[in-house]
Amino acid sequence: MTRDLTIAEVRLTPILVADPPLLNTQGVHQPYTPRLIVEIVTADGTTGLGETYGDTKYLELARPLADRLPGRSVMDVNGLFGIDLAVDASRIEGQADAGGLRGVQTADKLRLSVLSAFEVACLDAQGKALGLPVHALLGGKVRDAVEYSAYLFYKWDRHPAGVPAEPDAWGAALDPAGVVEQARRLRERYGFGSFKLKGGVFPPDEEIAAVRALAAAFPGHPLRLDPNGAWSVETSLKVAQELGDVLEYLEDPTLGTPAMARVAAGTEVPLATNMCVTTFGEIEEAFTKGAVQVVLSDHHYWGGLRNTQHLAAICAAFGVGVSMHSNTHLGISLAAMTQVAATVPNLHHACDSHYPWQSEDVLTERIAFDGGRVAVSDAPGLGVELDRDELARLHRRWAEDDGSLRDRDDAAAMRTAEPDWRTPAMPRW
Amino acid sequence: MTRDLTIAEVRLTPILVADPPLLNTQGVHQPYTPRLIVEIVTADGTTGLGETYGDTKYLELARPLADRLPGRSVMDVNGLFGIDLAVDASRIEGQADAGGLRGVQTADKLRLSVLSAFEVACLDAQGKALGLPVHALLGGKVRDAVEYSAYLFYKWDRHPAGVPAEPDAWGAALDPAGVVEQARRLRERYGFGSFKLKGGVFPPDEEIAAVRALAAAFPGHPLRLDPNGAWSVETSLKVAQELGDVLEYLEDPTLGTPAMARVAAGTEVPLATNMCVTTFGEIEEAFTKGAVQVVLSDHHYWGGLRNTQHLAAICAAFGVGVSMHSNTHLGISLAAMTQVAATVPNLHHACDSHYPWQSEDVLTERIAFDGGRVAVSDAPGLGVELDRDELARLHRRWAEDDGSLRDRDDAAAMRTAEPDWRTPAMPRW
Ligand SMILES: [Mg+2]
Ligand SMILES: [Mg+2]
Repeated sequence: MTRDLTIAEVRLTPILVADPPLLNTQGVHQPYTPRLIVEIVTADGTTGLGETYGDTKYLELARPLADRLPGRSVMDVNGLFGIDLAVDASRIEGQADAGGLRGVQTADKLRLSVLSAFEVACLDAQGKALGLPVHALLGGKVRDAVEYSAYLFYKWDRHPAGVPAEPDAWGAALDPAGVVEQARRLRERYGFGSFKLKGGVFPPDEEIAAVRALAAAFPGHPLRLDPNGAWSVETSLKVAQELGDVLEYLEDPTLGTPAMARVAAGTEVPLATNMCVTTFGEIEEAFTKGAVQVVLSDHHYWGGLRNTQHLAAICAAFGVGVSMHSNTHLGISLAAMTQVAATVPNLHHACDSHYPWQSEDVLTERIAFDGGRVAVSDAPGLGVELDRDELARLHRRWAEDDGSLRDRDDAAAMRTAEPDWRTPAMPRW
Repeated sequence: MTRDLTIAEVRLTPILVADPPLLNTQGVHQPYTPRLIVEIVTADGTTGLGETYGDTKYLELARPLADRLPGRSVMDVNGLFGIDLAVDASRIEGQADAGGLRGVQTADKLRLSVLSAFEVACLDAQGKALGLPVHALLGGKVRDAVEYSAYLFYKWDRHPAGVPAEPDAWGAALDPAGVVEQARRLRERYGFGSFKLKGGVFPPDEEIAAVRALAAAFPGHPLRLDPNGAWSVETSLKVAQELGDVLEYLEDPTLGTPAMARVAAGTEVPLATNMCVTTFGEIEEAFTKGAVQVVLSDHHYWGGLRNTQHLAAICAAFGVGVSMHSNTHLGISLAAMTQVAATVPNLHHACDSHYPWQSEDVLTERIAFDGGRVAVSDAPGLGVELDRDELARLHRRWAEDDGSLRDRDDAAAMRTAEPDWRTPAMPRW
């Protein structure tokens, strides 16, 4: 056999990808967001792809990791997690990542978020070398398609004046009618059967009204609301009370496991999270306190696809539901998410995906949603192919940036429109 | 590529293997114990091997499962767990399996114990077909050798008169001196650096004396004592008090999670279990009550190697240690255990293995212990080869048995020596 699965080269390509002016409780998405594309090349020329956050602190960790890989086997993914990356915890711990949207930053979470792209790239390379889809390397798919929900955002119709940005075909959504119209278009185009609204942007009553409007427009379809922890316990309970009859779950209504536990104790509405449980170390407290009923796994946070499977098994053992979370990402991560989601037996909620909001991608062919579902590819690896021209173009954008967009900062973007904007103190309402 | 990983045939071979007269709280091992050897053959002629319990109720479940597999892919191990085996729970639930030694029987545990052999056989076939060791299919080994402990038993020098049995070279061990002598021989021959005594056979003071004698003979070596739940909470606490300075952990001193939790609350000695936590459904109560500090995973109970990895991840998230348990088994299961143990980062205790007590095996070459360790094979699959002549011989023994040995019954074996023996009521002391 001439196959040689030794890692010969690792290529890291930071890029900036266009992002529409989506609003959240921290501010607004910048016109471009940083991502990191990882290519792991084996001695026999197989290339595996991975993708993760591209902010500076992720890049700083990815480079020394990449340097350590040549000579190792692409099969050795467990060993990746034993590589000592000497993360400088003092620079990291306790900061709120991306203005709090990714939960509290810890050295371990940062490390795993970087490692995830390398794990996925190794699995992609394995699959290509062995002629097997990634899901087969994860024990095999238990479904042929993975369901996603429509990810609704309050948004402006354009980025603030003076900001260089790609055009955005979606228009504004700043009230219940705008949200319903956005939902209708997303459903028409992609077939989504459930809807998640990113909240925490307007006072709770306005967001309650938006969810009520969605319920009226799409009766019987599962609805979710996620204010990214913007509410007090009392406000969370009030929203749960008012929307209890239409919500599939309420996502991170308030910040931190103790507060989430108080909300959970006071409502029958299940609470979901991708903020208070984002690492293995946060599970015990949250589960024993009954603080969350659904964990939204994100394979970036958790360190890749195998860890996502472990997380799902932990949830199963504790009677906690599983869904999947998404931050701004491209097709490599959507393919990875779909492959692992296909293998998780206890995935009983549609996954989130930002992907419809990304007009740019680094793949030769965009991933399609059909009836709100992504078909699980049975092609070798992740089943996607890199568009090198597009990768180069998005990398040039990153290289030419003056540094102001290399770290996601939704509050800074908001200040270009509202100079007095400050990151809101939490709870905001 | 001509490779065809479709399952073409499944062969099930029940066997009886020689077993020495090892004593436990339920009775004594019979001269032969039933095992089931599973062979899964793919369309391209690759054969994967698995092994599990061979008692009748396991065979009854294995046959319909085997019938369902042809036409499926050997890569599809997750799908195995979705096959509806229609286990008749009413015949199973609540019975104590093998006289209680395997914990309380549940339909799910029985199902998983059967499935484990099929999962392992699929992984072995995958590895052979792909030219990869099983550990690579599990994400890769994080160690090159797996440490095992010497598994010490009180034992007679021979099976009761009138019982047809293989000769036994180990002699009797019925007091502290006999236990130390057995430990010395096991250490000389295999290099074991830690020792586990199967207790619950004699009154606690005698077993305390045996452990004290081991501590004196092997100072600094980790020691464990496992009475299979034979003690009351009070007795357990007394033993923990008396042996606290020398025990690595105390294994299943008492029966059931509530009683284990009471013992755990009263001692600093870690409690290990392969009786009160043997299925995913038993984890939550035990972990939230702090009833166990080490779970002895057994890939048979837990449904195979991937589930064992999941279990280890659950333990890691809850700060619970991992070790591995063994019932009477042959080399296929030892190879499987070694492959998965090699991939578990948080395996910080030597694993148990009965293997040194098995004079017979179905492999062409016995698995070797060197310095108490089994080297992790990098050969394709499990790295073991079936000895078909020996398999046939051991199957003939099963086929010719009148039925009295096809279901393990340590109490029945004891009655051949002590006609008045009854399964002891628990707690025994
Ligand atoms: Mg969220
Ligand atoms: Mg035990």
